[in-house]
Amino acid sequence: MALMTGEEYVESMRKMNLNVYMFGEKIDDPVDNPVLRPSLNSVKATYDLAQMPEYEDLMTVTLEDGRKINRFANIHRNTDDLIKKVKMQRLCGQKTASCFQRCVGMDAFNAVWSTTYEIDKKYSTNYHENFKSYLRMVQDRDFTVDGAMTDPKGDRSLAPHAQPDLDLYLRVVEQREDGIVVRGAKAHQTGIINSQEVIVMPTVAMGPEDKDFAVSFAVPTDAEGITMIIGRQSCDTRKLEGSSMDVGNSEFGGVEALVVFDDVFVPNDRIFLNGEYEFAGMLVERFAGYHRQSYGGCKVGVGDVLIGAAALAADYNGVPKASHIKDKLIEMVHLNETLYCCGIACSAEGKPTESGNYLIDLLLANVCKQNVTRYPYEIARLAEDIAGGFMVTAPSEKDLRSPVVGPMVEKYLKGTAGVSTENRLKILRLIENLTLGTAAVGYRTESMHGAGSPQAQRIMISRQGSIGKKKELAKEIAKIRD
Amino acid sequence: MALMTGEEYVESMRKMNLNVYMFGEKIDDPVDNPVLRPSLNSVKATYDLAQMPEYEDLMTVTLEDGRKINRFANIHRNTDDLIKKVKMQRLCGQKTASCFQRCVGMDAFNAVWSTTYEIDKKYSTNYHENFKSYLRMVQDRDFTVDGAMTDPKGDRSLAPHAQPDLDLYLRVVEQREDGIVVRGAKAHQTGIINSQEVIVMPTVAMGPEDKDFAVSFAVPTDAEGITMIIGRQSCDTRKLEGSSMDVGNSEFGGVEALVVFDDVFVPNDRIFLNGEYEFAGMLVERFAGYHRQSYGGCKVGVGDVLIGAAALAADYNGVPKASHIKDKLIEMVHLNETLYCCGIACSAEGKPTESGNYLIDLLLANVCKQNVTRYPYEIARLAEDIAGGFMVTAPSEKDLRSPVVGPMVEKYLKGTAGVSTENRLKILRLIENLTLGTAAVGYRTESMHGAGSPQAQRIMISRQGSIGKKKELAKEIAKIRD
Amino acid sequence: MALMTGEEYVESMRKMNLNVYMFGEKIDDPVDNPVLRPSLNSVKATYDLAQMPEYEDLMTVTLEDGRKINRFANIHRNTDDLIKKVKMQRLCGQKTASCFQRCVGMDAFNAVWSTTYEIDKKYSTNYHENFKSYLRMVQDRDFTVDGAMTDPKGDRSLAPHAQPDLDLYLRVVEQREDGIVVRGAKAHQTGIINSQEVIVMPTVAMGPEDKDFAVSFAVPTDAEGITMIIGRQSCDTRKLEGSSMDVGNSEFGGVEALVVFDDVFVPNDRIFLNGEYEFAGMLVERFAGYHRQSYGGCKVGVGDVLIGAAALAADYNGVPKASHIKDKLIEMVHLNETLYCCGIACSAEGKPTESGNYLIDLLLANVCKQNVTRYPYEIARLAEDIAGGFMVTAPSEKDLRSPVVGPMVEKYLKGTAGVSTENRLKILRLIENLTLGTAAVGYRTESMHGAGSPQAQRIMISRQGSIGKKKELAKEIAKIRD
Amino acid sequence: MALMTGEEYVESMRKMNLNVYMFGEKIDDPVDNPVLRPSLNSVKATYDLAQMPEYEDLMTVTLEDGRKINRFANIHRNTDDLIKKVKMQRLCGQKTASCFQRCVGMDAFNAVWSTTYEIDKKYSTNYHENFKSYLRMVQDRDFTVDGAMTDPKGDRSLAPHAQPDLDLYLRVVEQREDGIVVRGAKAHQTGIINSQEVIVMPTVAMGPEDKDFAVSFAVPTDAEGITMIIGRQSCDTRKLEGSSMDVGNSEFGGVEALVVFDDVFVPNDRIFLNGEYEFAGMLVERFAGYHRQSYGGCKVGVGDVLIGAAALAADYNGVPKASHIKDKLIEMVHLNETLYCCGIACSAEGKPTESGNYLIDLLLANVCKQNVTRYPYEIARLAEDIAGGFMVTAPSEKDLRSPVVGPMVEKYLKGTAGVSTENRLKILRLIENLTLGTAAVGYRTESMHGAGSPQAQRIMISRQGSIGKKKELAKEIAKIRD
Repeated sequence: MALMTGEEYVESMRKMNLNVYMFGEKIDDPVDNPVLRPSLNSVKATYDLAQMPEYEDLMTVTLEDGRKINRFANIHRNTDDLIKKVKMQRLCGQKTASCFQRCVGMDAFNAVWSTTYEIDKKYSTNYHENFKSYLRMVQDRDFTVDGAMTDPKGDRSLAPHAQPDLDLYLRVVEQREDGIVVRGAKAHQTGIINSQEVIVMPTVAMGPEDKDFAVSFAVPTDAEGITMIIGRQSCDTRKLEGSSMDVGNSEFGGVEALVVFDDVFVPNDRIFLNGEYEFAGMLVERFAGYHRQSYGGCKVGVGDVLIGAAALAADYNGVPKASHIKDKLIEMVHLNETLYCCGIACSAEGKPTESGNYLIDLLLANVCKQNVTRYPYEIARLAEDIAGGFMVTAPSEKDLRSPVVGPMVEKYLKGTAGVSTENRLKILRLIENLTLGTAAVGYRTESMHGAGSPQAQRIMISRQGSIGKKKELAKEIAKIRD
Repeated sequence: MALMTGEEYVESMRKMNLNVYMFGEKIDDPVDNPVLRPSLNSVKATYDLAQMPEYEDLMTVTLEDGRKINRFANIHRNTDDLIKKVKMQRLCGQKTASCFQRCVGMDAFNAVWSTTYEIDKKYSTNYHENFKSYLRMVQDRDFTVDGAMTDPKGDRSLAPHAQPDLDLYLRVVEQREDGIVVRGAKAHQTGIINSQEVIVMPTVAMGPEDKDFAVSFAVPTDAEGITMIIGRQSCDTRKLEGSSMDVGNSEFGGVEALVVFDDVFVPNDRIFLNGEYEFAGMLVERFAGYHRQSYGGCKVGVGDVLIGAAALAADYNGVPKASHIKDKLIEMVHLNETLYCCGIACSAEGKPTESGNYLIDLLLANVCKQNVTRYPYEIARLAEDIAGGFMVTAPSEKDLRSPVVGPMVEKYLKGTAGVSTENRLKILRLIENLTLGTAAVGYRTESMHGAGSPQAQRIMISRQGSIGKKKELAKEIAKIRD
Repeated sequence: MALMTGEEYVESMRKMNLNVYMFGEKIDDPVDNPVLRPSLNSVKATYDLAQMPEYEDLMTVTLEDGRKINRFANIHRNTDDLIKKVKMQRLCGQKTASCFQRCVGMDAFNAVWSTTYEIDKKYSTNYHENFKSYLRMVQDRDFTVDGAMTDPKGDRSLAPHAQPDLDLYLRVVEQREDGIVVRGAKAHQTGIINSQEVIVMPTVAMGPEDKDFAVSFAVPTDAEGITMIIGRQSCDTRKLEGSSMDVGNSEFGGVEALVVFDDVFVPNDRIFLNGEYEFAGMLVERFAGYHRQSYGGCKVGVGDVLIGAAALAADYNGVPKASHIKDKLIEMVHLNETLYCCGIACSAEGKPTESGNYLIDLLLANVCKQNVTRYPYEIARLAEDIAGGFMVTAPSEKDLRSPVVGPMVEKYLKGTAGVSTENRLKILRLIENLTLGTAAVGYRTESMHGAGSPQAQRIMISRQGSIGKKKELAKEIAKIRD
Repeated sequence: MALMTGEEYVESMRKMNLNVYMFGEKIDDPVDNPVLRPSLNSVKATYDLAQMPEYEDLMTVTLEDGRKINRFANIHRNTDDLIKKVKMQRLCGQKTASCFQRCVGMDAFNAVWSTTYEIDKKYSTNYHENFKSYLRMVQDRDFTVDGAMTDPKGDRSLAPHAQPDLDLYLRVVEQREDGIVVRGAKAHQTGIINSQEVIVMPTVAMGPEDKDFAVSFAVPTDAEGITMIIGRQSCDTRKLEGSSMDVGNSEFGGVEALVVFDDVFVPNDRIFLNGEYEFAGMLVERFAGYHRQSYGGCKVGVGDVLIGAAALAADYNGVPKASHIKDKLIEMVHLNETLYCCGIACSAEGKPTESGNYLIDLLLANVCKQNVTRYPYEIARLAEDIAGGFMVTAPSEKDLRSPVVGPMVEKYLKGTAGVSTENRLKILRLIENLTLGTAAVGYRTESMHGAGSPQAQRIMISRQGSIGKKKELAKEIAKIRD
């Protein structure tokens, strides 16, 4: 099967039978729900862009066997693939100004690929073959796959097996001849409602007592027993008002869900890990590493839009030549490109795994993500500085359209000559969307916690930072002989 | 008349005949509108707290003539008054976790007091007496007064008289025997819909050609010709859903309005400046100075709540002893108290004006506000770090209450033992409110732009920083003789 | 006796019989040693300034009994005294651009004053009377007194009594009828070689097993058994070259010494603590609190000089109007005044101790010092930015004076018209002195570690930050009922 | 000729007849001068490392014609070369903890290579052939070449031709049949005294009136008319004391000189630019771009040593397990690796020039250098934090060796068990060297101003940041149609 068009993708999602709840109600048609549709559109963009000749090189990959696939389903074959992955993500961020959700699947593919290879080598299991078949199906059907890692974790000071409620980490509750039955939940799932499939992975390194929690597998997102409960976002219901102006970004968005697995059956050929607990850490570390790289692409693309919006706001306010404004825009670019440097560098320094696919440099990928927990906040702060107070005090579109107060809004919110009040408001709403609204969830909080909270990266930086070797360098210079 | 109780204040507001629009509709009863009510409650708190014996010293002042007034109506008599002002503001911030709106009036009183004194001295005008009578009335009736300064400004690179539309700065359009008629608008008015009165002031230093724009006066907020158009806030309509949990702070809030003065008449005895353009700068500088001091109190109080909320979130997540969590809380306290230091210092270094009332130290007040444009953002970032991802992905209260998905939410969002999922969600919603929601408008964007945008403070720091004197000090040390 | 003049002070030091070593040699005449003299001059400045009418209010105090003393010997009677202390320190910093060393004594006086009062109250000891008599002598003879706190500490993970070598914390080795004999050392003593007296205090809170280490007393600096070993500073020997240009600040400086107490006898009437171990913590906390306040004055004064020097360098380079240069100077002022705000605020918020003297607000004083561990580094960085590369690559004064290469230096290091190469070099050398040279030890490293390293302040901020009360505030707003 | 050994290099420098002045005196034997020798040793390391098999891949390049050259003389053929350049620089930084000086030549080679190609194409000049012959000689003789760009500039607000003294930018004073005669100076030359050759380039973009200043050429460093005047560094004369401990880094260092060209003759075949003023900007931009990349390697290597030294200091102080110490080391690694990411990324994103050699990505290289103006300062601050106060107050080695005070120093400066006082002092001196001493000139100030001051990068970031394209992205999302 060829690559799907965006429309075909939407149709394929329409055929899914997802079990979605929002605001306490079951959502019968998530594809057309106005709160959820923008997030579908963001995924759709990954299909649309793949159809455009100018983006073919970034968005698609032609494999050795001649199959042309979407890069989101690619197993990275070299550092060039790793670099193009980041560039594809920046592009998608630029075009959607939101989370386009398809990265977690791609990062899961590559982590599961190499980990299953190494498990099989040790235990003569069949996980890698299972996964190869699965991936082939995904590539050929051009599916979007959610990668589900984060368990609710309950009391974070306790290991999985020590939780009062064992289900707070997803686990195998029954081993059957033909497969396994799993129970638990995965939190913060951004792409799940827009995916045909989900790959589940463990969320922490595990010990022998956590054996039942060391499980990885794939199921369709409408498998029996799966429930998705949509999380609230700042300004979520503004999308119900019908004002494309007030939402800032009327076409694209992202949405998160809590996904509950209530005794879901997984057939044997879709199992990629089942009890080999010592590989849980490897899988987590590799997935997290790839996903920390990802943020050096996607968030940079969103940052590009925010910088552009701030620059437009300055134009519309009549102050594009003020030196302090120019300097703030430079700083925003500088910070944004520093993130990009980290994304590119951990890719360029990638190395092959035993299985042959390429893994990013783990130290640099963690450095990348650590910066992502800081700079988008500062970029957002500078955008708010440049935007000015109207970003949060401007009246609604309904006021602008009102015969009574509309003319007042029109008159008094006018900026520089030649710019309509409407356009000025649109750009302010976009900045609001990215710094305070629905997209701020993705641009700020997800930058903080996605792919692991800041402290997770610091632990990895500590481990990978070669402090011991650095001490030797210092001793050499200081002529210290022990 | 004695101090009003909170209830009396609410009743007094109910009697006003305000002309308020929101979402394109006229709001007949702003006092009881669910979107607006929290902001009324914040002002009400300034009355309630003044009735409580434990806060009497901070919240009230007994004047020489024996009258006991709310401190918000006080003319600062010494540095002790200036310091107590800041402490009162921190208290109100702690109790409301939002903008309580009554500061702009207080800051206007003190700026107009000393400026009118100096105008009269030069021109033998009667502004100071006008203002004294007016203030006496405000004190005795215990009114809340909005201080209105910020004009829409249009093209910011042009002076008032050079704007294509002259109304973009509020101005006198008619000089009459018995008063003046004014036209224009004031933007970002936080307290206007909860005030009985408004004092209007110019927004920039002015030259001879800007004479008509150099005007200050007071009118009732329901004076003929005044229209208030409520600004949109992030998550504003969440207050309409009836969930006290999802709004984070169900009782208090703040709201901004664009206030249009469409040929409003001002009688002579309520005029405080009318054409003496060279005093516009003094009035702006002093009001801004007082208001930049204010932020060293109110935002610190809100910061206290946010720090407390983050500490609770850490408790509920089961990680209160993690060293990185403790360190982040320390950093939040450190930053918050640094702001407080600035608020206290510019007060302790206050000096009397010619009129006798006390003015804060202008350099230090500007330093104070400059820090306020930075640290709340970092405090918010750290709060988001500690809170974890559920702050933006947790389902709604309706989901929690649903018979179908409620048990799942209850089970999987459970934190540490002994803490209910409900309480955990409440504290996460409060953090969301302060960092992304309605209160973020006050805690973040208003910290940025209120009382003047960052660059305004930098200009003042440059002017007040005594660079010339510092050069002399350096020459002395370096033994440079010119 | 009246206040000493600067010259009288120098003569009084000349009469001392100090046991000083530097570069492995005994220094017979420390007063006239070119490496040490600048540090004596800095202390001398505290006498000279006290003689000048324009500084009388800051530099001196007239006590109730009519005695006029140097403020460095004052027991703070109110918050006004605390504020004036900070202003005096800023002044001295401005006039010396270095550490003037007399603060540790002043801070020791005030900490010992209140602590001895409370010990006596509990144990009916006579320490407070001992100290009063001692202080009276110091005030009347206008002595400079070194406050000595920091022990070498050895392995920092072990308590005093658990050190392999017990002497690594100073301790009582013999209790005699007429006094005690002490052994140990105090590190980093900035003022010891320029002081007539030294007050020794313990350096950490102590438990029962540390009884022998809980000791405080005063002795003359030339008491038998005391040895001072001068620490190396960056660029220390440049002072031996005879070039007033190359040293940057030819008149003033600071110097540190390791002071060894090799069985020094202390008579009973000079003992202020002797075994009451539970008061060691109080003494340390109060001294540290006062000294952390001090840095909000002295370092600000030095910062004033550095800002002035950077502004002059910009003038001499011909770029004073470049917007980025102006902005960097504003930032330097902003950071410097933020430190000052902290110094003023912890003073204005001071409260009386049981003994009646005033103690600064401990939380704010720790916040003050914490900022001092950061901002001088950033101010220095900005100064280096403005100064340009010649700060570290310009030839020596000898090159400038050379008949061969002097004309080349003169020609090619010329800056803007009307400024001599010599003056340009002088200002660059001053910036070098403050950022890399002898004064950097005081402006940078002492800002970091003096009065306790950064982590010490964070522990205090954690203790004093009222996190528990802040949680209550958050619960109140979030309507959480336990 | 084969690659030179380190010893052969030293001998080759001994044969040069350089005209060097320091402290007003001519230095007859710069190779063996104790102030200058460490900087020679740093260059020597680039020869020594090239002889070691384990570094062969990084340190050398085998060309298509089979010649094996030192990578410092390589013309980058692809992005892999660009990346290896950065890795070689990190290695050299790790091994010398200082500036090894040979990068400016390498960066000049690559900038001159492509620029001369484009000049020739436009003007049919012979510059590229001139340069190819020259480079071949340099490669075959394995020479170190100084790249000299920075003119003294005089009044920085004036263009070259507008300076009162025209010589403040180096210029052609005579066009002769057989060559040109040049006059002027180049400042801040780090490698000149250790180079056999120097390539001179203009320092700014130029207009038609600056024609005489648009000149590039190469001459031997001992050409007639060249004078080098050594710049003072912090702690420079400490190297004369004979203490290897007190200098911190006894083997390696860097030194800067002011180089005067007093009517130096340049033969025609060594001229690479002569009046084609519009190419001055291209040459500057490319050289600066390469050199800004370089800092993402060399400073990272020095940072590795500083991090190692701080970690050792923590060990020796007995606090390696304190969580705040570990966190500071992580932060140091994080910042250092962020710089490395920038160095790698601008290399991986390199593109071929018209001439075929590879140029780094200009935007990312400028982002790299901008970060270098910030992070080494913060890394240094954290190192000072961890090191503790003894870094600046410890006595000299002479004190440690003194029979009188030596035992006291030995006893009281002892750290944790099993570590000698001597080793503890050595590591503290190394940190001092890097943060305050001779190496701080390279690690801090050169990081600030080398390869252009911070504002120079900001201008480039502004130009290269595609703000216009970013505005289009924002308009697309906000649905703004002009």
